Amino acid sequence: MTSIDLSADAARAALAPLRLDLADDEAVDRYATAIWCQLVEPGDSAAGRVVATHGPAEALVRLVAGAAFPGLSAREAVAAQKRWMPRLAPRGVTDAVRIAAARGVSLVVRGDPAWPAQLDDLQDHAPLCLWVRGDLSVLSRLQPSIALVGARAASGYGDLVARELAAELAGDGIPIVSGGAYGIDGAAHRAALGAGGTTVALLAGGAERAYPAGHTQLIDDIAATGLVVSEVPCGSAPTKWRFLQRNRLIAALTTATVVVEAGWRSGSLNTAGHAADLGRGLGAVPGPITSPGSAGTHRLIRDYGASCVTGADDVRELLGVATCTAARPGEGRTDDSTRVQDALSSRVGRHAAEVARRAGMAVDEVQPLLGMLQLAGVAHAGVDGWRSTAGRG
Amino acid sequence: MTSIDLSADAARAALAPLRLDLADDEAVDRYATAIWCQLVEPGDSAAGRVVATHGPAEALVRLVAGAAFPGLSAREAVAAQKRWMPRLAPRGVTDAVRIAAARGVSLVVRGDPAWPAQLDDLQDHAPLCLWVRGDLSVLSRLQPSIALVGARAASGYGDLVARELAAELAGDGIPIVSGGAYGIDGAAHRAALGAGGTTVALLAGGAERAYPAGHTQLIDDIAATGLVVSEVPCGSAPTKWRFLQRNRLIAALTTATVVVEAGWRSGSLNTAGHAADLGRGLGAVPGPITSPGSAGTHRLIRDYGASCVTGADDVRELLGVATCTAARPGEGRTDDSTRVQDALSSRVGRHAAEVARRAGMAVDEVQPLLGMLQLAGVAHAGVDGWRSTAGRG
Repeated sequence: MTSIDLSADAARAALAPLRLDLADDEAVDRYATAIWCQLVEPGDSAAGRVVATHGPAEALVRLVAGAAFPGLSAREAVAAQKRWMPRLAPRGVTDAVRIAAARGVSLVVRGDPAWPAQLDDLQDHAPLCLWVRGDLSVLSRLQPSIALVGARAASGYGDLVARELAAELAGDGIPIVSGGAYGIDGAAHRAALGAGGTTVALLAGGAERAYPAGHTQLIDDIAATGLVVSEVPCGSAPTKWRFLQRNRLIAALTTATVVVEAGWRSGSLNTAGHAADLGRGLGAVPGPITSPGSAGTHRLIRDYGASCVTGADDVRELLGVATCTAARPGEGRTDDSTRVQDALSSRVGRHAAEVARRAGMAVDEVQPLLGMLQLAGVAHAGVDGWRSTAGRG
Repeated sequence: MTSIDLSADAARAALAPLRLDLADDEAVDRYATAIWCQLVEPGDSAAGRVVATHGPAEALVRLVAGAAFPGLSAREAVAAQKRWMPRLAPRGVTDAVRIAAARGVSLVVRGDPAWPAQLDDLQDHAPLCLWVRGDLSVLSRLQPSIALVGARAASGYGDLVARELAAELAGDGIPIVSGGAYGIDGAAHRAALGAGGTTVALLAGGAERAYPAGHTQLIDDIAATGLVVSEVPCGSAPTKWRFLQRNRLIAALTTATVVVEAGWRSGSLNTAGHAADLGRGLGAVPGPITSPGSAGTHRLIRDYGASCVTGADDVRELLGVATCTAARPGEGRTDDSTRVQDALSSRVGRHAAEVARRAGMAVDEVQPLLGMLQLAGVAHAGVDGWRSTAGRG
């Protein structure tokens, strides 16, 4: 059986590279959380429950001692022991901390002032900690914020829409959150940076390195003014599982998720599903029905109640951010004045009785409408009667 | 005061060109209906009520006599008298009948076997009669049928979508109803004809002439196998009012209306509004949010509850027509097998314990999943352990 030293000295030694000034129990809790982070895959609800019940240090002691976990069924406890214990190696944590310190990555745990409370909506599936690189204060400025996500293989249309939405919203002070991937994610991050706004990248692997590697410069740029976030320790590879779990963090951190472009089975539908499950706003941008890249967004609109997003104003509406929209123009006029206007000609003058007969209306109904049409500049009265000032008459 | 001869002989004489074999009271009712058609503009609810209450002939007698109409308020009655009476000229009806007979246009009134009962959903606003050119039997085969409507200034995208939807649905035996205009309407009619299907054009002016004139050949082609319909007498001009009222007939005749492409203030939104008011199905085809031609369809989806139509199957769903859809593919796998697959490499073999550690799972959880992955052909076991048969491992 592996043992582990959870003394304050051991904790301080392990966390030393992060240069924190911590009380004994803070150091031990933080160290224990970092260890948990190493033991479990993202979204492990059994871990979420035992850490919530006992605190990270006590839960770890029980795990190592093979003690019972009252929050878990016997079967769950056995399965959990079996999947967590093989990863218990103090070395893993010291490595992660060393990489984090070298790359300017901080460890944020629940209870820290920077901890984003909206993550707790994930309940047992909430992350145990976050590894973040950049401006820590951004974490507490994500309400409201918008997740703009979508396909890696974006079309020119998707790329354009992502850039336009991100630039306008970020320029307005709304943080843009995305996954740092090629395609829609990258377009959204770049446009937010270009607009001088705040953007946050949630990574599936460690926060210290870019994935994809081709986005190394972009991720560095994001960290320079915004934030790069991961729940897995530095040094962790981005696996498919972690991508799917990363999507739940994107949904949980933000006020609403908008899928800009997505194929029928795109991973961004997974993010959308999390947003819907969490009661966050969910929008999708329509596109040509002839484009496979919009099949997923149409699916969200048709079958999952996503709001049809056609511009930044629609996103603001999803966010519940007050917007000064221009009055929407009324429907086509379907009233009597239309009939009177139909009865006028631009070529020949018609007296009111003739206009009334052609309109199928009474003369005394027609008269005031003619006056109104004159005021509106679309009819005028001459010696030979009324004419329209334009139209096919 | 104009008088009018409503004897059976007068009625027979006026209707003679239509070569009908009618009993006396049928002839009088049909003649009186044709006269009402001349007196009122489409959608005149006061006329709808008095004709429904007294029958067309008796209502006409009361009108000419200046008698009271119990169904109308005193004020309504005065206004109605004033707008109807100036148009009372027997000559108008004989002219309309002569044109109709010359152009093969028939007069269909309520009570005729061909009368489409679904029009009565319009209540007081229902048409008093229909003037139709083509295969009369089509009128009773419009349930189900689909209205495909949209902008005159269609884009290449809208034109393509209208053609594809119309061809597939018409080829399936579903009649395509539209307004005979340039753009989306014309594309839908043409594709329906091309697919050997049935199509119906609702005109705002008389059924004897094409509007626009550039669609003369198309309207003739529609009349050859389908139907051209109008509620205004032959010889009537298509006014703006009549276009708007024609839209209510398109909505009322069909099971559902789909707007293919429409600007923010397109007249087809008016048709959509009628469809919604009548409880008919309403769909709209999304398009690029950068295209003004889709602003109206997105508006219908966002604000008016229109269903997002991405293909013929979606239209069949609107119509309630059974369709044999392929099973929709499931969401991305988010389960343990994904984690096991993540833990495999294609380059190096890994034993189950190592796979379990990497997956963050217990060995006895991993073992059966490895077996399933092997069955699925994505993992295989060799002397040095398990490998994935593909992937980035």
